[in-house]
Amino acid sequence: MAKETLLLTIGVLGGTGKEGKGLAYRWAKAGYQVLIGSRYSEKAVTAASEIMELLEGESSVVGTTNQEAAGQANIVVVTVPYSGHRELLENVREALNGKLVIDTTVPLVPPKVSKVQMPPAGSAAQEAKEILGENVEVVAAFQNVSYEYLLGDEDIACDVLVTGSSKKARQEALTLVEAAGLVGWDAGPIENSVVVEGLTSVLININKQYGSTHAGIKITGAQKPSGS
Amino acid sequence: MAKETLLLTIGVLGGTGKEGKGLAYRWAKAGYQVLIGSRYSEKAVTAASEIMELLEGESSVVGTTNQEAAGQANIVVVTVPYSGHRELLENVREALNGKLVIDTTVPLVPPKVSKVQMPPAGSAAQEAKEILGENVEVVAAFQNVSYEYLLGDEDIACDVLVTGSSKKARQEALTLVEAAGLVGWDAGPIENSVVVEGLTSVLININKQYGSTHAGIKITGAQKPSGS
Repeated sequence: MAKETLLLTIGVLGGTGKEGKGLAYRWAKAGYQVLIGSRYSEKAVTAASEIMELLEGESSVVGTTNQEAAGQANIVVVTVPYSGHRELLENVREALNGKLVIDTTVPLVPPKVSKVQMPPAGSAAQEAKEILGENVEVVAAFQNVSYEYLLGDEDIACDVLVTGSSKKARQEALTLVEAAGLVGWDAGPIENSVVVEGLTSVLININKQYGSTHAGIKITGAQKPSGS
Repeated sequence: MAKETLLLTIGVLGGTGKEGKGLAYRWAKAGYQVLIGSRYSEKAVTAASEIMELLEGESSVVGTTNQEAAGQANIVVVTVPYSGHRELLENVREALNGKLVIDTTVPLVPPKVSKVQMPPAGSAAQEAKEILGENVEVVAAFQNVSYEYLLGDEDIACDVLVTGSSKKARQEALTLVEAAGLVGWDAGPIENSVVVEGLTSVLININKQYGSTHAGIKITGAQKPSGS
């Protein structure tokens, strides 16, 4: 028990989709305790056992409700479709007080998903910040990664741009990007989230125009101190 | 004379800055006729002769006023700082009727240039489209390239994302991107310009955080038909 309390717990809300499962798999493999949250805890339990099977090890992935996952985790990752974004955040608002929230949401507006259409707040991450208030740090990340790849162990040729409400929050999120085996970059204040989220529509457009399925981006001309 | 009228003429407005001179150099080298425009034609004449010296050949680069360049060119490229964007476009509006305008402007708001701050239209390109009206196609491109490199002949490790008011306009612009020796991608409708323009602030932020000077982006996971 004492050992467990030393470990950082990541709660992946809406974690039964492929985005959430892929990230949960990578973080559990890296040694984090992961809580998968869902509106229906049975779905989360099933997703958690699927991941535990893939890991074949001593990793810790537990399925529960979004409310429980939000309450018990140190860092909370939001992986719901944009249509459920506001409702989820309003429901778990109290439990997130004082925590770091990593928002992976892309505010796509079907059917025109290749056209950038941001909410009035400017981006999904800024909308989350508005809902959650001053006492919660919000970071945008992981919008452009092809999640199919996360459940495997291959290298992913797409960097992760990290924007957020403080430099400290961005740095904490960058640690989790690297723990997931990806290259992350501090891409600036939360107002820059429109670029990171909107890039998904640009990449969807490139896939459509050039017949690709997993277009991504790499930063060139800059080097990270650790070389990762 | 007959030969000349067969060639496409590119007018580079505000072309005495390093952005404009770099693009003018590359297009002149590729065989296009280039008109460099400036508020002061003497400055444009000087810039044109500097480029002609670099080219040492039969290329055609002529300096003139913005008004003349806009009127005589088939395709017009805007390379002014954002502070002069609206005034320039309003001044040459009549001359641009029916033409393709490639807008390279990044709406940076000093001193916070690492923070995305778009004009009410959504982006500089959308603002240009509002000013120029239905009969002018507007494309956004070249915002993220380090212009110092354009006046040399080395490879530039930064792709060009092209957004614009029609697919045909984006394709015409992509031809000019390739003529300048760069790799371009159709990044979708003009509403996506916020991503392309805003990416400049993200790259400025990366330069600041990681001590680089020329951060750029490359598209991964997709291939262009011509392999360029």
